[in-house]
Amino acid sequence: MRRVAICGLSMCKVGNHYNKSLRELFAEATLDALESAGNPCIDAMYIGNMSASEQTYQKNIASLLSNSIGLNSKPSILLECADGSGGAALYEGYKAVSSGLHDIVLVGGVEKMSEATRGENRKIGSMIIEQECEAFHGLSLDGQFALIMRYYMHHYNVSKRHFALFAVQMHKHAAGNRYAHLPYEISVEDALNMQTIADPVTLFDTAPTGDGAAAVILCPLEKAREFTENPVEIAGAGQASDTLALYDRKNILTFRATVEASKIALESSKLKISDINFFEVHDSYTISGFLALEDLGIIERGKVGHAVEEGLIDLNGPLPTNLSGGLKARGHPMGATGVYQAVESALQLQGQAGKNQIDPAEVALIHNAAGIGSIVTVHVLKRV
Amino acid sequence: MRRVAICGLSMCKVGNHYNKSLRELFAEATLDALESAGNPCIDAMYIGNMSASEQTYQKNIASLLSNSIGLNSKPSILLECADGSGGAALYEGYKAVSSGLHDIVLVGGVEKMSEATRGENRKIGSMIIEQECEAFHGLSLDGQFALIMRYYMHHYNVSKRHFALFAVQMHKHAAGNRYAHLPYEISVEDALNMQTIADPVTLFDTAPTGDGAAAVILCPLEKAREFTENPVEIAGAGQASDTLALYDRKNILTFRATVEASKIALESSKLKISDINFFEVHDSYTISGFLALEDLGIIERGKVGHAVEEGLIDLNGPLPTNLSGGLKARGHPMGATGVYQAVESALQLQGQAGKNQIDPAEVALIHNAAGIGSIVTVHVLKRV
Repeated sequence: MRRVAICGLSMCKVGNHYNKSLRELFAEATLDALESAGNPCIDAMYIGNMSASEQTYQKNIASLLSNSIGLNSKPSILLECADGSGGAALYEGYKAVSSGLHDIVLVGGVEKMSEATRGENRKIGSMIIEQECEAFHGLSLDGQFALIMRYYMHHYNVSKRHFALFAVQMHKHAAGNRYAHLPYEISVEDALNMQTIADPVTLFDTAPTGDGAAAVILCPLEKAREFTENPVEIAGAGQASDTLALYDRKNILTFRATVEASKIALESSKLKISDINFFEVHDSYTISGFLALEDLGIIERGKVGHAVEEGLIDLNGPLPTNLSGGLKARGHPMGATGVYQAVESALQLQGQAGKNQIDPAEVALIHNAAGIGSIVTVHVLKRV
Repeated sequence: MRRVAICGLSMCKVGNHYNKSLRELFAEATLDALESAGNPCIDAMYIGNMSASEQTYQKNIASLLSNSIGLNSKPSILLECADGSGGAALYEGYKAVSSGLHDIVLVGGVEKMSEATRGENRKIGSMIIEQECEAFHGLSLDGQFALIMRYYMHHYNVSKRHFALFAVQMHKHAAGNRYAHLPYEISVEDALNMQTIADPVTLFDTAPTGDGAAAVILCPLEKAREFTENPVEIAGAGQASDTLALYDRKNILTFRATVEASKIALESSKLKISDINFFEVHDSYTISGFLALEDLGIIERGKVGHAVEEGLIDLNGPLPTNLSGGLKARGHPMGATGVYQAVESALQLQGQAGKNQIDPAEVALIHNAAGIGSIVTVHVLKRV
C-alpha cells in the first residue's frame, strides 16, 4: 500500500450561510483547496454529507457537487453515516490513493442545515438514532446523551461544573479560530446557567449545527511536493462500528468503536497515543468529548473533568485538544465535521494555525463519530 | 493491487414484500450469502441503498443493517448514488480488497420501496433528478427519458415497436428467473397497448420499482477456494460520471459515463468487449437499455431495435443481454439493482442459472447507472 498525503486543503467559516446554497458552499471550499494544490487533475471524489436529501430533496448529490466545480466525468460518490460522514469520506479517499487505484482524490464534507426550518432540522437530527425502538418511544439524540451523562456523573462522582469547564475550554480555543461558528469566550457561570435541553444536558453541553464545507486533496506521499511545499501525511487510518441502538450496549460509558478504530489507526501509523501532540475529538456533546478522551487512552477514565480543570487539554497544556474549538464552539456542520478536523489539524502541522498555533505540532489524531459512536473513524496525521 | 473474487452470494426475489422490513430483507440475503461462503469473518461492509432515509426515517442505515446480522464492530458504510448505489458499493468493496486494506468484505444492496405510499414513492423517485432547474420546472425522470426516447426515434427513424420488442425480450428472460418481479412473458401488442406515462414512454417502457436485497462476499482471489468451490473473479472495474442535469449534456443520445466506465473496466481486465459472453445492462427504461448496448460498443448506434428483432440479445443469440430479465422484468429495487446484477452474473458463470443458463458463460459485463447515467459503474466478471 502506498503512503498518502494531504496536498491541498480549505474550509469555509462555519455558521448560518442563508445566502449560499449547498453547491455554492461546496464549490467555495473545494475550488480553494484545489487552488492550494496548484489545480491538479482529480481522479475521483468522495463526499461526506448527512442531510441534503432532506434539506434540498436532491439524491445523488455527489454528482451535483462535482458538476458545481466543473468536474463532470470522474467518479464522485456520496457516503452517509450521520455526523460521521466526513471521516468516512476521508477514509474512502485514503483507501483509494493508498491502493494505487487513484492518484489524486478530492475529499469533501458539506452540510447545509439552514435550508430547513428549526422544526424540520429537529426531525432530521432525530433520524440519526435508531428508529424502530428508541426514536419510536420518544428518545432523541439529546436524550441518549443525557442518559450517558447522568450515568457518568453518578458513576464517577463528577459534577455538572466539570462539563461546563469543558465547554469553557472549547470556547476559549474557538475564540482564536476565525472559521469557528461561536468564536467567543464564555464563563463557567454562563455554561451552568444555560437552559436545560434534556436534564442534565444544557444548551452549552451541545454542539451547534450549522452550514459548512471543507475539502482536502489527497495524493501519494512521494508525489506530494509536486503540489505543495507543506504536505501532511495520513500516517494511519482506522474505522470501526458499534450498535446503532443505545439499549444494545453493555456499557454506555465507553464507545467501543472509538477504542477499536484508534487501535487500528495507531497500529497502522506505528505510533503510540503518547506520540501524538494534539487531538481533534468528536465532542457533539460535552459528555461525548469526555468519552472520546478516555476511549482514545488520552486521559484516565472518570478523570477528564479534573484534567480540564487543571488545564491539561488547553492549547498551552500537555494534551492540547480541539484547538479548533471542537464541535462545541467551532460548530458542527454534521457530515462535514470530519473533514474540518482534517483541515484544521493539517494547518496546525503546517504551522499555519494562526493564534492557536502550538509547538511542537508534529503528529495529530482526529476522531469523528456517528451519533453515539455507531461508526467511528480515526486518522493520524503527520508533518512530513 | 490484489486480484479479487466473489466467494459467496445470495439474493431475495424482487417484489412487494409488505411483510418484511428493510433489515429483514437485508438479513435474509446477507446471512444466506455468508453461509454460501462458509460464514467467514467479515472485515468491512459496503451498502448500496437509495431511499431508506425517506422510507424509514433512518439515517446511518449501514450501522442498523450490520447490527441486524450480528456484525457489530466492523466498518459499515452506506453509499448513495440513486439507482447506481449498488454498483458503487460493489466498486468500493472491490477497492477495499484489491488494495489489501481488507480481506473479506460484504457488499450488500437493499431497497424497501413498499414502506411508503405510491405518492411518497413518486416524490422519492423524483429526487434522483436535478432539483434546482429540472425538477423545479416540472421535469420528472419519466420525462427525461421521454425526451431522450423521442429524440432517438426521430434521429434513427426507429418506431415504438422496437422498444416494445425490447420489453418482450426482457419478459421472456424473466420468465426463466425465479427471483424476478415480473416472471411472465408478454406480447408486442401488450407492450404497445400499455398506457402512456410520458409520451412516448409507456408503462412497459419503464422498470417496476420493488423491494429487494442482494449480497456478495468478496475476498482475495488466491484465498477464494478456502470459501467456495466456484469462485468468480472481478477481473475489471470502472466508474465514471456525467452531469446530473440533462440540459447540461451536449448529446443526449449517449451516456458518456457508460463509455468511460466500460473503457476503464475493460482495460483493467485486459479484455475486449468482443470477449464478453453476456451482459447485464441498466435498462431502467427501454431507451436506457438501448443506449447502454450502444455506449458499451455491443451494438452499432441506432441498430439496437433491429438487433432485438433479429434475436441477437436473446439467451440463444450471440449477444445474450439481461438474462435475469433486466430492470424491466427482473425488477428494479433501486439501490440494490447493481448488486443483483453481480449475483445473477456470478450464478451464470458458475453454471447455476437454472432455466436461463447459457453456454459458454466465461466472462460477463455488468453495467449499473444512476438516473440518466450521472454515475455509472461497470464490472467485468470472469469464471476462474
